[in-house]
Amino acid sequence: MSAHSQPLWQPPAIAPVDPQIAAGIRAVIDGKAKPPGSLGRIEDLALQLGMIRHPGEPRGDNAVLLVFAGDHGLVAEGVSQYPSAVTVAMVMTYLAGRATANAFATANDIDVRVIDIGVAAELPVHPKLIDAKVRMGTANAAREPAMTAEQAADALSRGYRIAVGEIKAGADIIALGEMGIGNTASSALVVHRLAPAPLDDCIGVGAGQDDAGMARKRATITKAAARSDATAPLDVLAEFGGLEIAGMAGAILGAASQRRPVIIDGFISSAAALLAIRLCPAARDYCVFAHRSAERGHDIVLHALDAKPLLDLGLRLGEGTGALLAVPLVRAAARMLTDVASLDDVLAGKI
Amino acid sequence: MSAHSQPLWQPPAIAPVDPQIAAGIRAVIDGKAKPPGSLGRIEDLALQLGMIRHPGEPRGDNAVLLVFAGDHGLVAEGVSQYPSAVTVAMVMTYLAGRATANAFATANDIDVRVIDIGVAAELPVHPKLIDAKVRMGTANAAREPAMTAEQAADALSRGYRIAVGEIKAGADIIALGEMGIGNTASSALVVHRLAPAPLDDCIGVGAGQDDAGMARKRATITKAAARSDATAPLDVLAEFGGLEIAGMAGAILGAASQRRPVIIDGFISSAAALLAIRLCPAARDYCVFAHRSAERGHDIVLHALDAKPLLDLGLRLGEGTGALLAVPLVRAAARMLTDVASLDDVLAGKI
Repeated sequence: MSAHSQPLWQPPAIAPVDPQIAAGIRAVIDGKAKPPGSLGRIEDLALQLGMIRHPGEPRGDNAVLLVFAGDHGLVAEGVSQYPSAVTVAMVMTYLAGRATANAFATANDIDVRVIDIGVAAELPVHPKLIDAKVRMGTANAAREPAMTAEQAADALSRGYRIAVGEIKAGADIIALGEMGIGNTASSALVVHRLAPAPLDDCIGVGAGQDDAGMARKRATITKAAARSDATAPLDVLAEFGGLEIAGMAGAILGAASQRRPVIIDGFISSAAALLAIRLCPAARDYCVFAHRSAERGHDIVLHALDAKPLLDLGLRLGEGTGALLAVPLVRAAARMLTDVASLDDVLAGKI
Repeated sequence: MSAHSQPLWQPPAIAPVDPQIAAGIRAVIDGKAKPPGSLGRIEDLALQLGMIRHPGEPRGDNAVLLVFAGDHGLVAEGVSQYPSAVTVAMVMTYLAGRATANAFATANDIDVRVIDIGVAAELPVHPKLIDAKVRMGTANAAREPAMTAEQAADALSRGYRIAVGEIKAGADIIALGEMGIGNTASSALVVHRLAPAPLDDCIGVGAGQDDAGMARKRATITKAAARSDATAPLDVLAEFGGLEIAGMAGAILGAASQRRPVIIDGFISSAAALLAIRLCPAARDYCVFAHRSAERGHDIVLHALDAKPLLDLGLRLGEGTGALLAVPLVRAAARMLTDVASLDDVLAGKI
């Protein structure tokens, strides 16, 4: 047993959705003015949303993307072709509204919050930047634990409180994204231990790597894995990172605690979902999986969580770009449930 | 040769997009602040939009769904489990804002226009209803031509003018939908002749059919096909219908003539796209295929047009519901092209 076995922060109890209400909501959907089943996966999504909000009704107007940014000590070993300085440069780009996440959010009327949960640099004070920094990036997990148990718990707690705050301020939907050079390496370790799955199957090209880079990445990740046999969720987090993964996992638990849907993006967000769900299995009911990432390893997480994503567009950027593209589907499913007339009313001329 | 070989209405010449500009736009996309290729199909979509609007920039804010409604004489033969009265009931539901198309449109800030291109009933005057009625539904194509050559040309022309009018009024994106009991039967005949493909492969359950219903539908469609050997696009349209298919085909040509993207929904909209593209091959460049419908026969049209749809959600409702769900992707792709900073600028600290 590692020293981290006693979690320092525990999410409040999260209730699963009530399976007893499924049949009633399914009957409402089947009774809408359309052939039963003709909306395919949107009907399943509407059912999930209806169960999440029961006895209230799902809403989707106010959607917020939380982009958690953090750095990784593993980058010192050459796991990425980009330096950690790119994390800072991209955070500044989000703040300037000029990144892909901003473009997708603007296109679809979604708010964006940028959270420094652990960027390895001092960032300027900016009205759009939420300072939730736990530490200046993680330690190099190939040589030592990425963070302490206290820091892991702190990052989870900060993510949790940010999501709860957004929901209390009116958010109907929380979408998750991240920025952190090196974070596919940390995610591979988290997925390897928590899915669990063979390590090599969890390692992909991330933002891009040539053969030599992939060999280096694989060797570094293997070295990190050999350093610790942790399998308990908080231990895995502390050993391998990262801070943005912790922040997202906390945000998932925060959304679930407030009974709001939370949209999971790609590989790294899904690693965070795996962590959140291993900590608190009921959180699964609140997760909407946005898309199938082109990053190797994503299918492993999806399989481990019995998740079938909505979109399959070959995305592998992160930033929450896939989650942003799923927001319109969630909004549509919610409106279908609340706004569409019943077939009985239509045929009776009551519309 | 049938008497319909001389088209009465010819769309203005539509220019294809210029293949020479592709490399330049691809270079802009590759130079954005993201790993090259990391947005997968959204990058291909952005390229298409950039080529459509070159040398201008694509926009997506103003999107309009055109729902063309028409009835089918084939319904007298029992090709649908629903009577044509349902077409009227659903038109009234669109006008009341209570159909699935309205819900999806409201959820994503898309305008909806409802067009009576050939409903087999007098519809009340309504401020939201565009009266473009060519005739009171088609004739029974199992026994006689669905419409005259003049009516086919008229329906195309009306659809064309409606789309052009919307674009001149500010629409950036045209999305297509339809309502017409019996229209999977007409579409099967259109696709069979224009793809071309074996008739049986084009016949599906539509809004739902039991085994006896499917046998009846298949027999009726086979009888209609045996009545005419038409293969020329306008002849096929006049022989087999329908008016809403003609209206949508005209709208596709209208959007292409104004160099705007037009989003194709499912099987019936794709049959209209096949018709439009057989009439004017350059129109293909302007079509965005929204989703893979669960209706049998859709894959045949998609294959014939070398189209890979964006979404695969098991939809088979029509109404433009799939097209509405693709609008946010088109908006996102347009914004990516116009709004996202270049990687060079980000790394140089110019953001």
